[in-house]
Amino acid sequence: MGYKLISTWKMSYHKMGEVKRMLKKKYSLQEIIETVITDVENNPDFHSVGFGGLPNREGVVELDAGYMDGDSLAFGAISAVRNIKNPILVASSLIKDRTNNYLTGKGAEKYAKENGFKTRKMLTKKAQEKYLNKVKEESHDTVCVIGKDLNGSMAVGVSTSGLFMKHPGRVGDSPIIGSGFYCDSQIGGAAATGVGEDIMRGCLSISVVNYMKQGLDAQKACERALFTYLERVNNKPDEISLIALDKDGNYGGCSTLEDFPFVVLDENNEAKLMAYKGKEKRVIETDDQWLANYKGD
Amino acid sequence: MGYKLISTWKMSYHKMGEVKRMLKKKYSLQEIIETVITDVENNPDFHSVGFGGLPNREGVVELDAGYMDGDSLAFGAISAVRNIKNPILVASSLIKDRTNNYLTGKGAEKYAKENGFKTRKMLTKKAQEKYLNKVKEESHDTVCVIGKDLNGSMAVGVSTSGLFMKHPGRVGDSPIIGSGFYCDSQIGGAAATGVGEDIMRGCLSISVVNYMKQGLDAQKACERALFTYLERVNNKPDEISLIALDKDGNYGGCSTLEDFPFVVLDENNEAKLMAYKGKEKRVIETDDQWLANYKGD
Repeated sequence: MGYKLISTWKMSYHKMGEVKRMLKKKYSLQEIIETVITDVENNPDFHSVGFGGLPNREGVVELDAGYMDGDSLAFGAISAVRNIKNPILVASSLIKDRTNNYLTGKGAEKYAKENGFKTRKMLTKKAQEKYLNKVKEESHDTVCVIGKDLNGSMAVGVSTSGLFMKHPGRVGDSPIIGSGFYCDSQIGGAAATGVGEDIMRGCLSISVVNYMKQGLDAQKACERALFTYLERVNNKPDEISLIALDKDGNYGGCSTLEDFPFVVLDENNEAKLMAYKGKEKRVIETDDQWLANYKGD
Repeated sequence: MGYKLISTWKMSYHKMGEVKRMLKKKYSLQEIIETVITDVENNPDFHSVGFGGLPNREGVVELDAGYMDGDSLAFGAISAVRNIKNPILVASSLIKDRTNNYLTGKGAEKYAKENGFKTRKMLTKKAQEKYLNKVKEESHDTVCVIGKDLNGSMAVGVSTSGLFMKHPGRVGDSPIIGSGFYCDSQIGGAAATGVGEDIMRGCLSISVVNYMKQGLDAQKACERALFTYLERVNNKPDEISLIALDKDGNYGGCSTLEDFPFVVLDENNEAKLMAYKGKEKRVIETDDQWLANYKGD
C-alpha cells in the first residue's frame, strides 16, 4: 500500500510537502516523523511548539514530547523540559530501553545533556513580549505526525510547549501515552491536540485506537471517540482535535473547532491540506479561499 | 448497594480494616481513600510507597501519585516530587481546577509548598542502606484504592515511589491517567501496580474499564485486559497486577505473579485479604497458612 502520513495543523504542511523527497532518499518512518516535527519545533513563528513557544506563568518555556513505535508498543516521552532544542528527538531516543522511557523535568534535561542532545534558549523575544503584555492567545496546538511505512509498520510523534501561562511543571496530554498519542501497527495510530486536561480525562488517543480495533475506520473512530466523550462530560470541553491513521491506510480527523486543518499524504499524491469543519461535521480539502480566511497556525 | 472498596497488596490490609469505623463517622469516599493511602505512605516499613520508599539511582526518593473522581472524570496527579510527606493529598487536591491538574517535579513541589502540604525528608536510614549496598529488591508495588459510595459515586487513588534505582525524573504508570488508574462511575474503576513502563505500553487501567463498558464484570475485565496485552507483546512483561471494581459492585484482581494479594470490603463484611494465584489463574481468600508463606508487602 505504500507510505501514508497524517499530521496536525497548517504549520506541518510545508515540511510534509518534502516527504516525497525524503522517501526517495530512503528515510525511515522514524526519520520522516522526526524531520517534520523538528521543522515545526525550530520555527520561531509557531508559538505552541519548540523554539518560540509561549512560556509558563513564570516566563519560562517548558516543553513536552512523545514518540511511539506501533510494532513493539515501545514509547518514549519527556515533559516540562527547559532549553532542549528538539524535544521530539529526546523522546524518540527513549524508546530503546525496557524501563525509564518517560522522564520529566530536571531528570529529563540531565538525560538529554548526557546524551548529546542540543540545548538552546527557547524563549524568543516575541514570545517574551506576548508574556509581558499578557497577550491573550490560544496556544495549545501540538504538532502530531502519524505514519505507516511500506512494511505496514506504524509510528507516531508529538511535540508541544503546552498551555500559555500554565503552572510551572504542568504536564498536558502530549507526553502521556494513551492521551496525547497511541499507536499499534496491528490496528492504527491516533494523536490529539487541544486542551490537554480535557483530552486526558477521556484518554482520547487510545479511545480512537479502541474504536478502530472494533472495526471503525480512522474517520469514524475519531468521530465516535470525540462525540462519545463530549456527551459523557456534558459538552464542557471547548477545544479538542484528533487525527488517526488506521492499518488499512485510511485517514481521519475530527474537532470541536470550526476549522481544524491537518495534512495527509501518500506516495502517489502531493501533501494535501485538509480541514475538519466543526459546524458541518465533515472533512474538506482546503482551497485558496479557505487559506485566505484561516488565521491560525 | 452500599460502600465497596478494593485495594492492592497486604500493606493496605491494616487500614482497610478500619474503614467500617470511618463509615460510622461519615467519612466521604475521598477521605476514606486518602486515609488508607496516607497510612501506607507514612509507614517506613513499606519500601515502595511514600516515607521509606527506595531512592532513584542518585539516592533521592522521588514520588508519584494520582487521584480520579468517577462522576466528573476530574483527576489530579503529581510525579517526581521530592520531600512531600503525602503525595496522594497533593494529587487529590489538584482535581478542582479545569487545567493544571497534572504537575511534575519542581513545579509540583512549589504547588505543594504554597498550598500548605507537609514536607518531610523521605529517605529513611534503612532505605539508604539498601541503596548503598545496592540490595537487589523488587520494589514497584503501588498502593491503589478504588471505592464506590452509597450514591454510586466512584473514585480511585494511587501512590508510589516507583522503581528502585530509576533514572532521576523517571515517571511510571501511577500518575498517568488511563495507565495507573481510571474511573468512570457509569462503568467502574481500575488501577495497576507493577513495572510501570509495561503497564503504560498497554494503558491497562482504561483497558480494564473499556472491557467493563463492553459488559464484562470486574474480574473478567481484569483478566481480558491483562492476557490480551501479554499476548500482544509476546509475554515479555514480568510483573503486572490489576484491580477493578465495576459499577454493580463486583470486584476483580489479576496478575502475572504467583501471589498477588488485594483487599476487599463492603459495609456488611470485615476487610478480606484475597490473592490472585498466577499459576492457577484464580482468586482465593487467604488463610493463616497463606499468610505464613507470603514474604511480600
